[in-house]
Amino acid sequence: MDMMTKDQYIESLRKLHLNLYSFGEKVENPVDNAIIRPSLNSFAATYELAEDPQYEDLMTATSNLTGKKINRFTHLHQSTDDLIKKVKMQRLLGQKTAACFQRCVGMDASNAVYSTTYETDEACGTHYFDNFVKFWTDVQENDWAVDGAMTDVKGDRSLSPSKQADPDLFLHVVERTADGVYVTGAKAHQTGYINSHYVLVMPTISMREGDEDYAISFACPTDAEGITLILGRQSCDTRKTEEYNDIDVGNKVYGGHEVLVIFDHVFIPNEMIFLNGEVQFAGMMVERFAGYHRQSYGGCKVGVGDVLIGATALAGDMAGSAKASHVKDKLIEMTHLNETLYCCGIACSSQGTKTKSGNYLIDLLLANVCKQNVTRFPYEIARLAQDLAGGLMVTQPSEADYRNPATHDYIEKYLKGVASVPTEDRMRVLRLIENMTMGTAAVGYLPESMHGAGSPQAQRIMIARQSNLEMKKELAKKIARIK
Amino acid sequence: MDMMTKDQYIESLRKLHLNLYSFGEKVENPVDNAIIRPSLNSFAATYELAEDPQYEDLMTATSNLTGKKINRFTHLHQSTDDLIKKVKMQRLLGQKTAACFQRCVGMDASNAVYSTTYETDEACGTHYFDNFVKFWTDVQENDWAVDGAMTDVKGDRSLSPSKQADPDLFLHVVERTADGVYVTGAKAHQTGYINSHYVLVMPTISMREGDEDYAISFACPTDAEGITLILGRQSCDTRKTEEYNDIDVGNKVYGGHEVLVIFDHVFIPNEMIFLNGEVQFAGMMVERFAGYHRQSYGGCKVGVGDVLIGATALAGDMAGSAKASHVKDKLIEMTHLNETLYCCGIACSSQGTKTKSGNYLIDLLLANVCKQNVTRFPYEIARLAQDLAGGLMVTQPSEADYRNPATHDYIEKYLKGVASVPTEDRMRVLRLIENMTMGTAAVGYLPESMHGAGSPQAQRIMIARQSNLEMKKELAKKIARIK
Amino acid sequence: MDMMTKDQYIESLRKLHLNLYSFGEKVENPVDNAIIRPSLNSFAATYELAEDPQYEDLMTATSNLTGKKINRFTHLHQSTDDLIKKVKMQRLLGQKTAACFQRCVGMDASNAVYSTTYETDEACGTHYFDNFVKFWTDVQENDWAVDGAMTDVKGDRSLSPSKQADPDLFLHVVERTADGVYVTGAKAHQTGYINSHYVLVMPTISMREGDEDYAISFACPTDAEGITLILGRQSCDTRKTEEYNDIDVGNKVYGGHEVLVIFDHVFIPNEMIFLNGEVQFAGMMVERFAGYHRQSYGGCKVGVGDVLIGATALAGDMAGSAKASHVKDKLIEMTHLNETLYCCGIACSSQGTKTKSGNYLIDLLLANVCKQNVTRFPYEIARLAQDLAGGLMVTQPSEADYRNPATHDYIEKYLKGVASVPTEDRMRVLRLIENMTMGTAAVGYLPESMHGAGSPQAQRIMIARQSNLEMKKELAKKIARIK
Amino acid sequence: MDMMTKDQYIESLRKLHLNLYSFGEKVENPVDNAIIRPSLNSFAATYELAEDPQYEDLMTATSNLTGKKINRFTHLHQSTDDLIKKVKMQRLLGQKTAACFQRCVGMDASNAVYSTTYETDEACGTHYFDNFVKFWTDVQENDWAVDGAMTDVKGDRSLSPSKQADPDLFLHVVERTADGVYVTGAKAHQTGYINSHYVLVMPTISMREGDEDYAISFACPTDAEGITLILGRQSCDTRKTEEYNDIDVGNKVYGGHEVLVIFDHVFIPNEMIFLNGEVQFAGMMVERFAGYHRQSYGGCKVGVGDVLIGATALAGDMAGSAKASHVKDKLIEMTHLNETLYCCGIACSSQGTKTKSGNYLIDLLLANVCKQNVTRFPYEIARLAQDLAGGLMVTQPSEADYRNPATHDYIEKYLKGVASVPTEDRMRVLRLIENMTMGTAAVGYLPESMHGAGSPQAQRIMIARQSNLEMKKELAKKIARIK
Repeated sequence: MDMMTKDQYIESLRKLHLNLYSFGEKVENPVDNAIIRPSLNSFAATYELAEDPQYEDLMTATSNLTGKKINRFTHLHQSTDDLIKKVKMQRLLGQKTAACFQRCVGMDASNAVYSTTYETDEACGTHYFDNFVKFWTDVQENDWAVDGAMTDVKGDRSLSPSKQADPDLFLHVVERTADGVYVTGAKAHQTGYINSHYVLVMPTISMREGDEDYAISFACPTDAEGITLILGRQSCDTRKTEEYNDIDVGNKVYGGHEVLVIFDHVFIPNEMIFLNGEVQFAGMMVERFAGYHRQSYGGCKVGVGDVLIGATALAGDMAGSAKASHVKDKLIEMTHLNETLYCCGIACSSQGTKTKSGNYLIDLLLANVCKQNVTRFPYEIARLAQDLAGGLMVTQPSEADYRNPATHDYIEKYLKGVASVPTEDRMRVLRLIENMTMGTAAVGYLPESMHGAGSPQAQRIMIARQSNLEMKKELAKKIARIK
Repeated sequence: MDMMTKDQYIESLRKLHLNLYSFGEKVENPVDNAIIRPSLNSFAATYELAEDPQYEDLMTATSNLTGKKINRFTHLHQSTDDLIKKVKMQRLLGQKTAACFQRCVGMDASNAVYSTTYETDEACGTHYFDNFVKFWTDVQENDWAVDGAMTDVKGDRSLSPSKQADPDLFLHVVERTADGVYVTGAKAHQTGYINSHYVLVMPTISMREGDEDYAISFACPTDAEGITLILGRQSCDTRKTEEYNDIDVGNKVYGGHEVLVIFDHVFIPNEMIFLNGEVQFAGMMVERFAGYHRQSYGGCKVGVGDVLIGATALAGDMAGSAKASHVKDKLIEMTHLNETLYCCGIACSSQGTKTKSGNYLIDLLLANVCKQNVTRFPYEIARLAQDLAGGLMVTQPSEADYRNPATHDYIEKYLKGVASVPTEDRMRVLRLIENMTMGTAAVGYLPESMHGAGSPQAQRIMIARQSNLEMKKELAKKIARIK
Repeated sequence: MDMMTKDQYIESLRKLHLNLYSFGEKVENPVDNAIIRPSLNSFAATYELAEDPQYEDLMTATSNLTGKKINRFTHLHQSTDDLIKKVKMQRLLGQKTAACFQRCVGMDASNAVYSTTYETDEACGTHYFDNFVKFWTDVQENDWAVDGAMTDVKGDRSLSPSKQADPDLFLHVVERTADGVYVTGAKAHQTGYINSHYVLVMPTISMREGDEDYAISFACPTDAEGITLILGRQSCDTRKTEEYNDIDVGNKVYGGHEVLVIFDHVFIPNEMIFLNGEVQFAGMMVERFAGYHRQSYGGCKVGVGDVLIGATALAGDMAGSAKASHVKDKLIEMTHLNETLYCCGIACSSQGTKTKSGNYLIDLLLANVCKQNVTRFPYEIARLAQDLAGGLMVTQPSEADYRNPATHDYIEKYLKGVASVPTEDRMRVLRLIENMTMGTAAVGYLPESMHGAGSPQAQRIMIARQSNLEMKKELAKKIARIK
Repeated sequence: MDMMTKDQYIESLRKLHLNLYSFGEKVENPVDNAIIRPSLNSFAATYELAEDPQYEDLMTATSNLTGKKINRFTHLHQSTDDLIKKVKMQRLLGQKTAACFQRCVGMDASNAVYSTTYETDEACGTHYFDNFVKFWTDVQENDWAVDGAMTDVKGDRSLSPSKQADPDLFLHVVERTADGVYVTGAKAHQTGYINSHYVLVMPTISMREGDEDYAISFACPTDAEGITLILGRQSCDTRKTEEYNDIDVGNKVYGGHEVLVIFDHVFIPNEMIFLNGEVQFAGMMVERFAGYHRQSYGGCKVGVGDVLIGATALAGDMAGSAKASHVKDKLIEMTHLNETLYCCGIACSSQGTKTKSGNYLIDLLLANVCKQNVTRFPYEIARLAQDLAGGLMVTQPSEADYRNPATHDYIEKYLKGVASVPTEDRMRVLRLIENMTMGTAAVGYLPESMHGAGSPQAQRIMIARQSNLEMKKELAKKIARIK
């Protein structure tokens, strides 16, 4: 089969039977749900841009499994050039959607599972690699959307999985049969799940002996029996359902979502299992997935940052402050920080290396450095955006007041900035900045930059582990002439 | 009359006839409006705490006008000790409301207008000081709530008031009669206006010859004829109107509001005018008001910060992460930053000086330094709060899902942190952090910290002006032995 | 006796018989030693300015012990106003010397020992307070210079005093007689010791049972038998001994010093002992001294910062870059950071409280916040100074080359900035900036700002201890409506 | 000829007849001069490592001019891989020398002049490219050391070259003959000049019509007639000449130097001229050289940073503090910042593009972002190093005192940290940290990081120019649905 078009993709989602809840009700039709739809539009952009010839080089690749042209989001990276193109593709999509387009998690998961299953089989005589290659060939052939699921809810952070008061706080195998296993637990913060055909599940942390039931990786349809979904609510989410939902939403077309995914005794057949008790390989899978995903943030958030910088510059133009030296300087600083993130995304890609399985892994140290910066710079970029946008960003009247004849003319008159710019345009830009720094998009641009692909402390632990401090001490000893 | 009780205050507001619009409709009863009420509760706390004997020293003072005990929010500061108590009172109210309690603007305006009218009269032979003393005596006698209004909408920032395409973009006198003047224009971002009996208007910037019509200061009832109000919408504002509005609002009781105030040919009688064309004193009024208000932020935002630090510490306790060294260290950093702001608030108060009129003015340099830090540190405190709160802060299901029997047990089970803490309590704390860093309270804690009392560049200009660089050059020349 | 004049002070030092070593030799005459003399000049400025009527209010006080007028450096603070004047006096001296004037340690030690001995006596029935009052009355009467000595060399930081391989790595009592005790150990980083008549020794950390021999506080003459001093070398110290030592030293007149003080079986008579085994009061003494000394940095380093800001502004003037917006903005930032430190120094003074003994103690939380900022901002101020000074600050030829006829004209011609400014003046300013950011003065302005009065982590521990996190959690619980 | 060995290189320098002054005297033998020699050792390391087979891939390349194996420092980069290897070679040398090894400037200049002469010839019909290729072929054939010289002394920064009071403050042509030109002026801050055979001169800024005489690029021998050199003095430079110069110098073997180079009517023959009046290409040459050199800092300073991180970790080990969580965390932060710089160096290389002349140019935006970070992070790394090193770094006695029997045992005893580590080793490490953060090496690590390859504001101007703000505005308009 060829790659899906955007429309085919959207239609394909209508066939899913998701057991999804939101705002206290079952959602019968997620595709047309006002709250969820913008996230579907973002995801769909990964299909749409792949259809566009001008983006062919970034958006598509040649499969190492089938030799066919595939969407790069389903690609197993075959070179450092592939890794770099991945980052550029993500920046492009960030620029087009100003939101989380959600398809990276599955891409990153697949590359981690691919190389880990290979090495697990090599060490343990298992056959997970074959399982995965077969599954992933289907994914590529059908151009499926796949969600990668790692983060367990974790309960009490001071206790290991098996020490929790409730054993289900980390997803685990609760029953084993000849044909497969049953799993119970929950994966939190899942971006894109509702817009995906399959979910690819991985363990959430390194494991040790005794944790065998928790060392489980598998794939299953997103609407498998026993799975329940509860939508997370975002800042300002219901603006999308208001009568006047054009201006105040900021970004009307695109968005993201996060969902709590509950597995309640879900059956996984053997051929869809990629790790099952080999505790010593849980850590590798986690580390590689996290590494790929920390790289990803050096692309997608940079693209979102581009939009925020652009919006901030527009706000300055519209207020007549664009020529003030401090305004120009702050835009430079925003750009500088944003491009520093991009440097990190590019560098960890450029320094990638081939795994035993043949696909390419990013440089783990630099990928963690990348993500660590992502936990800081978007916050400063957002702060500067709020500085330059001015207070009106959070005090302007609602669109309903703008449409109300009793108040329209006052708003039109008094929210005018530069005389030649329509007031409505200025309102739109300010609402976009609000959206990206406090509203629905801020969820993706700020806390997700903080916690997605692991919280800052997780990166620091990896940086410590990868920093080769002993070698550095030797360098210093030599210079100081210490034996 | 004695000070009003909280209840008397609330009842007194019912008598106002505000011409207020919100979400496309006229608001007939602001007092009981779900969106506005939390801001009224915050304002009312300034009355309530003044009734409480344990806070008497901070919340009340002895009037220099009448010798009577008054609410400190109506006090004309008579010493540096008064200035320090002002800051402590503001921190207290920030701690109690975790929001903007709105009564500071009028307090700061009154102190600025008091001393400026005195010096204007001295120089120009006018009688504004008498006007103001009479008005303010009434305010103290009746314990009225007064909004201070400075910020004009300003239009094109590269043009002065008289050069704007529309002359009304800065509030100005449009007609003069024997009895008074008529004014037209708009004041933006007004916090507390809806909860106030009077508004005290000041010019927004320094003026020069030719700007006489814009050099106007006066007071009038908030419901004077010709005034129209349009409520600004805040992030997540409509959560307050949802069916389940207990958990998701974060801070159910308290909040703030901002309103666009339009003066359309409003009559101001002579006795309520405090500046009228004396362009050379517009700058003094602006600078002093801004100085007082920049001091204020060293109190109120510190109190709000205390709540955010507490909430973040609770989130750590509830997740079982409180003992991790990085968690403890980040709480220390949050505290350090918050107390640095407090130091600035205290210092500019402690170094205050007596004006010619007899009330005390804060140290202008240090007050500007104070506010400049407020444009930075709350953002870093909020970032650290989001770090420690974890992603659940922005991905947890709605309260409606928690109340829905179909999903309640799953949420109860999987959002549990430390076993002994009720899941609902954890949800409440996370929603509070969301509220303070992205929701309604974030409007007050972040962009208002940025732009309230003047945007960061305004402080930098004042810091430059007050920094006595020439004296510092002389010090350096002496050390370097340069003649 | 009246206060000493500057000259009397210098003469008095000639009578000391210090056992001092520097650069491999015994220093027979420290007063006229080229390396040490600038530090003496700084110390002497504390006498000189006290003679100057214009500084009388800041530089002198009325003794609570004798009722006489004394140098404020020997004063036991009797009010928050005294605490504030202390900070202002320190800023003044920093401005005049651009260096460490060294007399603060003794002032801070005396105030800590005064209140701690009072409370020790009250609890333990000892008579240390009388001892101390008698000693300090002599100090005031004679206007002696007193060094405060706290920091032990500490050996292995992971081990407590009694667990060290060498018991002398913390100063301790090694022999007890009826008349007094003998002590052995070393105090590191002593600023001002060489210029002092007495040293006031305190323990370096909190103690517990078993540490009795280490819980020792006393005073003795700086040239007591058994004491050996070894001068620490500073960056660029020997420039002071070069043939051409006018320009390249940067700050020719003033400087500081640090010395390692070794106590080798030194006898301390009973009447000079202020703590002797009461382990439970060691912590109080340490904490109070550290608190006072952390306050001090909010004065002295601010004064030094003033000079550095002035020098940087001059460098811009001389290079013709003063009008560039980024130059002006960086000077504002330097000022902002410097004044933030001052705010902290003022605030912890303003919020001081009376001790049982009657003198005033700074607010401990705010004093630690003050010092924590001092471990950061001077570094950023220095970085900005180096930014604005330009590379010439570190690449300009030596003064000897400037004086050499073979090269003088080239230097004169090519190091010229603005045509009207003598090249030599520009060289002087650049050398001053070098001196303050990399040379002898940098030792005081940077690493001493980092480590003096305790390293940054010490302040963080105190901030944690003083932050009242439980109260903040209660505030948050109330807002979140958690029982 | 083959590449020179380290020894051949050193011998070759003995044949130069430099007219060099330092400390008021003519330096007859720079090679064996104690102050200069460490810089020669650093430069020589670029020859020494090229002899070492293990570094062949990084240290050598195949010439596009001759097809022979050459030292990479003389290479015209033929691919992005070459650009990346350049950065890695620089990091390697930084690790080995902990200093500036000086050979990058010529490498960066040659690549800029190569492509610019090509495009100049193409546009203007000149023959500079041939001139340069011929010269550079000789350089490669002889493995010469070449200094690149750009920075003029500039005089009054507010005036253009031709408006200066003294026309020589920018280097310019003062006489033209049939065979060549005579130039006069001075180049400041030249690193490596004394250790080079040739100097490659470029203009210092963009030029416009009227500046023709200043638009001059050429090469000449470093000891050409009319050239005078005056050595810049560095912080702590004379420690290298002290009797005990083993410990206190910190880095005994390696260092850097800066020299003021004065051209006094120096003749340049036509065949060594690469730009001569084509004002429109001065900017291209400057921008490209600056770009390459800003990339370089993402390599060399990272290598130096590695040594400083290692030294700081050693200091912690030796003090017994290595296991404290804040110590580990600060080492992580230092590593994080250092690797962020490396990311920028790698990224701008990876994204390089081919010039018309065939060599590769780095990505200009990312190279400027790289350097901008270098003006910040080394300062923070140095601050953290001083934090962890402790105050002893600046207060420990001189080596002479350590060698003096009268004080040796005291120092041995009291400067001991962890019992198993020799005191002398600890002293060595602390002196190394002092050297790198305040001493001779600090000149290279800090102010040179600030100003080398252009001061921070220069990068900000380039970032603004390269940031494509209009495209970003379009992205924002599309998301905000503005026509």
